[in-house]
Amino acid sequence: MRLQLTARMRVAHIAPLYERVPPMLYGGTERVVSYLVEEQVRRGHQVTLFASGDSRTAADIVAAVPRALRLDAGHTDPLAPHVVELSQVFEHADEFDLIHSHVDYLAFPFSRLVGTPTVHTLHGRLDLPHLRPLMHHFADVPLVSISNAQRRPLQHLQLNWTATVHHGLPLGSYDLGPGDGHYIAFLGRIAPEKGPGLAIAAAKAAGMRLKIAAKVDPVDRPYFESEIQPLLDDPLIDYVGEIGDADKPRFLGEATALIFPIDWPEPFGLVVIEALACGTPVIARPCGSVPELITPGRTGFLADTLDEIVEALRGVDRLDRAQCRREAERRFSVERMVDDYDAVYESLATGAPLT
Amino acid sequence: MRLQLTARMRVAHIAPLYERVPPMLYGGTERVVSYLVEEQVRRGHQVTLFASGDSRTAADIVAAVPRALRLDAGHTDPLAPHVVELSQVFEHADEFDLIHSHVDYLAFPFSRLVGTPTVHTLHGRLDLPHLRPLMHHFADVPLVSISNAQRRPLQHLQLNWTATVHHGLPLGSYDLGPGDGHYIAFLGRIAPEKGPGLAIAAAKAAGMRLKIAAKVDPVDRPYFESEIQPLLDDPLIDYVGEIGDADKPRFLGEATALIFPIDWPEPFGLVVIEALACGTPVIARPCGSVPELITPGRTGFLADTLDEIVEALRGVDRLDRAQCRREAERRFSVERMVDDYDAVYESLATGAPLT
Repeated sequence: MRLQLTARMRVAHIAPLYERVPPMLYGGTERVVSYLVEEQVRRGHQVTLFASGDSRTAADIVAAVPRALRLDAGHTDPLAPHVVELSQVFEHADEFDLIHSHVDYLAFPFSRLVGTPTVHTLHGRLDLPHLRPLMHHFADVPLVSISNAQRRPLQHLQLNWTATVHHGLPLGSYDLGPGDGHYIAFLGRIAPEKGPGLAIAAAKAAGMRLKIAAKVDPVDRPYFESEIQPLLDDPLIDYVGEIGDADKPRFLGEATALIFPIDWPEPFGLVVIEALACGTPVIARPCGSVPELITPGRTGFLADTLDEIVEALRGVDRLDRAQCRREAERRFSVERMVDDYDAVYESLATGAPLT
Repeated sequence: MRLQLTARMRVAHIAPLYERVPPMLYGGTERVVSYLVEEQVRRGHQVTLFASGDSRTAADIVAAVPRALRLDAGHTDPLAPHVVELSQVFEHADEFDLIHSHVDYLAFPFSRLVGTPTVHTLHGRLDLPHLRPLMHHFADVPLVSISNAQRRPLQHLQLNWTATVHHGLPLGSYDLGPGDGHYIAFLGRIAPEKGPGLAIAAAKAAGMRLKIAAKVDPVDRPYFESEIQPLLDDPLIDYVGEIGDADKPRFLGEATALIFPIDWPEPFGLVVIEALACGTPVIARPCGSVPELITPGRTGFLADTLDEIVEALRGVDRLDRAQCRREAERRFSVERMVDDYDAVYESLATGAPLT
């Protein structure tokens, strides 16, 4: 019943314009939108993707800008093209059965002005004080969180959370890796909140090799040079710079473990489930969404302090890599994500509560 | 006929939330909105002002934030409260005969989603490249420019300009001043585009006293310290710091002339018409709206180079101060401004073209 109903749906997705869909480089939101859209098209939804014109998709595309903003150095005001994008979507609201926004609160007021059901997946952190009065004002707007932890800062407001939908990956793009590279992997960005210094200290204390594949944003360059670069001159530490999406599965799959020593309430750690998809267990600080993604003692360890992380590193080869991969297949596939969204859409389109 | 129709109108004004209406300090847009709203209330319009909660008005007020954002250091994201404000306005669109926005392009997409006619007075500069695709997209949205010069960067786009409405002042708050202070006045901000260095050079070359009443924003502090402060150590130059609204009429009214040597396309120089309201002629570089505000040889001089400005300073006492005041009364009163907007509203409400 559900599949028949939702298969006929005309869905509009509103993607951020910062990166193309999928992104050339870093850009978690645009990547997840891409996975979602392509799987929905495959299932027979009639999908229109509002995104930058250089996006690659099997859906129909409507582009407020020809190229992703982050690649267009001349763009000084990212708000203007998003305002155009929202206009493009909501003027044609009656051509869609459902509108699914990924541009955070900017789309909220339009929700109330059109008859088409809309749902907003919030991709960012919600612990910023200026968001509280805004969220209170839009208490009726249907929301999806990407982790339960993401909602925590707003838990005392009565909001219209329809579901938490964890991200999913196209698991065919990741294989169960051998884990025989004899290194711990650090993947992402060099920034204080990502904990690269703690990762280095833990690897040294455990006497294990650490490979750091990470970009350094201009804003984090001083931090990198003063805090991290002095720690790299050690035979155990290998800084390999930024790597592309194509190199990630191998980088993760050959690692003994992924280390994810974050120091902020990350709403969803995409790299955590990428590691699991490669069979690689994860050692992570229990911040934000992390405890929802890792099953301690099975797919990794939660470890808070340096000592705990060192202990976890020493015990990580006891974990079963095939089990990590199976958990990714069970919990973090794009098919599961799209099933979850189908249920959200159906509930919104029919007015029935989610079961 | 016009007055009878418009007297019955229910008008919503959308003010920026950066300053209260009227502003405590600097804030041209919020000040003009205040003049407009109070005169419309006086004429019997039923006006609702969407603005910060500390605003002072005879209109009904709906506040997205209790205090103006610029006074609220904790506010890191000015976009969020404006999104709430737009939601507050446009959800209740059917309770108004006309919606008048002063928050620039952010309100454009809502224009197309509601049945109530809306008009957008653009208060900012329009010569920024990212605005062109946006304005093209919103070519049908009814716009008001605050000077003809303001439109120039977009003159090759077919936009829906309904009128240029020059700002007006409550002239009862300004008297024809004596002009006997034996100084030239510079009033506003210390910033490169305002030309304080040129003003100082011209005063020195003309052998005339210059009084500078201006604030220094944090962003302009290095410019002030390196470029301007070294020029102040001269008996002809008197830097008096920032002055409040209450002190402005006297500061302007005792001056021989206002010097306005701007180096940017200012969409409307409010201080120019304030000077005229005090009977004080204006010597200005012919940038942006300036040539529309000054009648050369009658209410001031247009002067481009240092030599031309010096020549103008030497000739300025030939101009008739009473004539400057009369021109302000004829062209820059709040009553004239409200008449102009009444005509715009009537045209939008009835669909008839402006005559």
